[in-house]
Amino acid sequence: MLSYKAPVDDVLFLLRDVFHIERYDNLPGFADANIETLAAILSEGGKFCEEVLQPLNRVGDREGCKRNADGSVTTPKGFKEAYKQMAEGGWIGLSAETEYGGQGLPHTVDAAMNEFASAANMAFNMYPGLSKGAYRALSIHGSDEQKQKYLPKLASGEWSGTMNLTEPHCGTDLGLIRTKAAPQQDGSYKITGTKIFISAGEHDLSKNIIHLVLARLPDAPPGVKGISLFVVPKSLLNADGTLGMHNDVRCIAIERKMGIHASPTCTMSYGERDGAVGFLVGEPNRGLEYMFIMMNDARFGVGVQGFALGETAYQHALAYAHERIQGRDAVNGQNNVPIIRHPDVKRMLLAMRARIMASRMLAYTVAGWYDRMHHDPNPAMATKCHRYVDLLMPVIKGWCAELGNEVADIAIQVFGGSGFVEETGVAQVRRDARIITIYEGTTGIQANDLVGRKVLREGAQTLQRLTAEMREIADDLLAAEDLRSQGRVLNADLDVLEQTTQWILANGQERLADVLAVAVPFLHLLGTICGSWQMGRAALAAREKLTQDNDAYYRGIVDLARFWFTHNAPQVSSLCRVIRDGGPALTGFDPRALDLQRL
Amino acid sequence: MLSYKAPVDDVLFLLRDVFHIERYDNLPGFADANIETLAAILSEGGKFCEEVLQPLNRVGDREGCKRNADGSVTTPKGFKEAYKQMAEGGWIGLSAETEYGGQGLPHTVDAAMNEFASAANMAFNMYPGLSKGAYRALSIHGSDEQKQKYLPKLASGEWSGTMNLTEPHCGTDLGLIRTKAAPQQDGSYKITGTKIFISAGEHDLSKNIIHLVLARLPDAPPGVKGISLFVVPKSLLNADGTLGMHNDVRCIAIERKMGIHASPTCTMSYGERDGAVGFLVGEPNRGLEYMFIMMNDARFGVGVQGFALGETAYQHALAYAHERIQGRDAVNGQNNVPIIRHPDVKRMLLAMRARIMASRMLAYTVAGWYDRMHHDPNPAMATKCHRYVDLLMPVIKGWCAELGNEVADIAIQVFGGSGFVEETGVAQVRRDARIITIYEGTTGIQANDLVGRKVLREGAQTLQRLTAEMREIADDLLAAEDLRSQGRVLNADLDVLEQTTQWILANGQERLADVLAVAVPFLHLLGTICGSWQMGRAALAAREKLTQDNDAYYRGIVDLARFWFTHNAPQVSSLCRVIRDGGPALTGFDPRALDLQRL
Repeated sequence: MLSYKAPVDDVLFLLRDVFHIERYDNLPGFADANIETLAAILSEGGKFCEEVLQPLNRVGDREGCKRNADGSVTTPKGFKEAYKQMAEGGWIGLSAETEYGGQGLPHTVDAAMNEFASAANMAFNMYPGLSKGAYRALSIHGSDEQKQKYLPKLASGEWSGTMNLTEPHCGTDLGLIRTKAAPQQDGSYKITGTKIFISAGEHDLSKNIIHLVLARLPDAPPGVKGISLFVVPKSLLNADGTLGMHNDVRCIAIERKMGIHASPTCTMSYGERDGAVGFLVGEPNRGLEYMFIMMNDARFGVGVQGFALGETAYQHALAYAHERIQGRDAVNGQNNVPIIRHPDVKRMLLAMRARIMASRMLAYTVAGWYDRMHHDPNPAMATKCHRYVDLLMPVIKGWCAELGNEVADIAIQVFGGSGFVEETGVAQVRRDARIITIYEGTTGIQANDLVGRKVLREGAQTLQRLTAEMREIADDLLAAEDLRSQGRVLNADLDVLEQTTQWILANGQERLADVLAVAVPFLHLLGTICGSWQMGRAALAAREKLTQDNDAYYRGIVDLARFWFTHNAPQVSSLCRVIRDGGPALTGFDPRALDLQRL
Repeated sequence: MLSYKAPVDDVLFLLRDVFHIERYDNLPGFADANIETLAAILSEGGKFCEEVLQPLNRVGDREGCKRNADGSVTTPKGFKEAYKQMAEGGWIGLSAETEYGGQGLPHTVDAAMNEFASAANMAFNMYPGLSKGAYRALSIHGSDEQKQKYLPKLASGEWSGTMNLTEPHCGTDLGLIRTKAAPQQDGSYKITGTKIFISAGEHDLSKNIIHLVLARLPDAPPGVKGISLFVVPKSLLNADGTLGMHNDVRCIAIERKMGIHASPTCTMSYGERDGAVGFLVGEPNRGLEYMFIMMNDARFGVGVQGFALGETAYQHALAYAHERIQGRDAVNGQNNVPIIRHPDVKRMLLAMRARIMASRMLAYTVAGWYDRMHHDPNPAMATKCHRYVDLLMPVIKGWCAELGNEVADIAIQVFGGSGFVEETGVAQVRRDARIITIYEGTTGIQANDLVGRKVLREGAQTLQRLTAEMREIADDLLAAEDLRSQGRVLNADLDVLEQTTQWILANGQERLADVLAVAVPFLHLLGTICGSWQMGRAALAAREKLTQDNDAYYRGIVDLARFWFTHNAPQVSSLCRVIRDGGPALTGFDPRALDLQRL
């Protein structure tokens, strides 16, 4: 059985040595979280994930969830107890406000706990993950009454949350939503419709399930501007707050999937009898805007799943590469060496670890901005952080997920034939990870969001500001003798980024099709350069530590950055050529030729 | 249920318009196969795969193989009948010699039939695929008696073959083999040992199974120079040739795998009672050399599986992209369009088709060389073809497999959430395809073979000759006005290939570790440039046809080549940087730092 060790020290290195988290102790939440406290919290959280969640990962894959004849869903053996422990430990409400019973800790800390939990048991962590998103949406747009009613229960984990967007005919294009909401005399609404792909739509872990549901009011305008958001609790509440009758909502099917078998992907039927009772959140027809709070929360969480699953895959592969004895050392001729001694196996391990560190650092940087956009006392700084979060959210979701998918695939390759066999467990990681680049908006959707809404719409102002900030790290690298070549690479790549951005701005109107044709390569370009920026930061921080203390860990970080700059950063050279030349070849291609391949 | 159409016309385009197969009618086998005959054979073969094999693909995945208490293995429902039809149709012996009951057709034709069968049902085609390899090895190194005894039965499919190399402690490093062969008075041997990962090691499709087994004689030298090859039939033969007693060989377990569930991956126990009766093939201690015939055959077949599965994945994705209505056309604003209208979806479809065509063309080019190395009346030409086959075999196995894996993954992405759900079938293609980059030698092993045995050992002579041949296509592209930019790209990339090759030659001794550190990037570099060479050939051939006849198919090929040159060929820019700079970053990395990541 494979084990998982939460990479607490990698996270502490980032928070302490790279991000200097102690500098933010003027922010609420951070004040209570000095580095010693954080270390204690992360260690305890990591231990919970290692000891409670990880052992259930395999069981979850094998057993999966079962839908019973009455529409209830039974989770795998052990999930109920683990969920209870997670809730009682306060892990679900880690970053929820203290007034609603949460721990009030920074989002950054919650991101780390999310990483550990997803790495240990991705399917399990879907349940609390969605609750957190529902909490976030209601905490911002719910009425006071709704906040009082739902937030403490969501923060404690007594109830859980879901996100109901997709319908059979509409996945990405939410303008097509057909689910109806009919106003009632008492101010509530009757919801009728079918939602598909609802993660944790029905299960037996929590006492109640709070569905956030997108639906249309009778007089709603067509398209996305006519969508409203409703709270539809599985069990309605009595006047005294106790659980009352079962609402008219039912899980009518669960999907058989390639992975995350322990997370039930439900088809939810609302209003089969006389309509499910729902309550409007905020104003009518602004549902999509509100749901975007939850969606962005989920998108960030999916980006985290990328390196979380990557870390699991990496740890498995590293352990196997030490254990597996095979072949001859090509350099010194020694026979029967562990396969980590073979250059290509070592290359794969570093390729995994470099991707994990780069994407983890980028995600935690965004998490830090998220905390500061809400709490920084300097409004200009808060606004800047908000813009950065918006700009990079599609990169976190799109790029970190793609990297996670790659890392999971490399792990199988390190295992060789044993990776394809289910017994070793790494195949499950690979199967589970495959959804990451898809749900909460595919990589293509993220890339369109990046190019259209985040770059073109504002004339790339935020991107240019971020580029300038990345230049500072390039300058610092150039100033450090042994990191100079990395500074040169980063500087040259930032030139490429500026040119490419200019190209997008210049062609975004008249040649929009050509620009969208290379949106995904652009997402990868920006992600890779952000990765170089982060690895440069890591190298600088680790190098500073090295001068005090010749620690092998810090040496390893400096060397990992060197690997990143010579193995990952070069992708920029090909991506910029694809972006420059690739549009017309795609746009000019007559798609009928694809159907005409049979003469 | 997804369907599959054998891409007969893509194959005919290659054979007729690009390779001009009619020029080889001086070779045996080709003489009987003019283009009309080939078209008829391929159409009929394609139809068999579409109508008989493809409908069993899903069933095979769901049912899998079952090992019974007596060690027998039951294949999924319908497999027996389909196998019987395949054998009776003469498809298994398509390229077997006529004197042993085969059809005597070129290897190139068999490659196409293999493609269709693997695409329709990869797991099913493993059974006859291995028989063909066993046939090949015995036809070259078997005694006359062995040939008479086994070849007709393998060619007819009445019996099937297997390949027994791997043991629990040795996968890649066959020098560690422990299975023993003890000489008997009657000239036979008693075989004792355990072999793992034996595809089709036991099943109920054929009347007998001919195991080719690597084992050590008592006086054998250690390592790979002490391995001999034995034929071990499942059922021994009576003097009159009828099937006699069951040999002392038994399937003791089958693996639970991520994919190809319908192909039993067996642990085979030889000699549990008093030794399995085996017969030496060729001379003692030359077993690995002989087995390489079968292994190269299998490696080629695995490369074919790459684009075969790719084609299936592509067809599924293309159909879905036409059917699935979602979102707004970003350019003309039309609502509710099929997703193929979204630039990124179209990009993914072309990315799939371009990879498939490039790798298919390269593989069939190698198949043509294989035919000519055996049959060309000009010994210099035969030798050249032999050298080219040897050089590119690791590229076919390594690079085509990697591309197939990528294509299968892209297909899931086109399907979005529905791709992750098992119901649509594309998830199975992805799971099945995952083994392709692993078995018969991982991509890393192929890359080491390429760099070590195929380039360094002979001072890159064959590679330089091939490079010069690729230059001719670059020149032809440069001479064609509308393909000039592609000629420039190919020429520049060939310069890169020459420089990189020189770098490998210059450093292969003193900096071997640095060279091996970038062996896989070099394999990708060579593969990508070979792909450009092939797509250039395709563009030139299609363009010539276009001048006669403005056919949308040929226009599609020209445009597909343009896509390849602007979306795939640019990878050369980053790969050459990785090759140039990446070695020391890997070699200099202290692997202990990977274990020291916990402070």
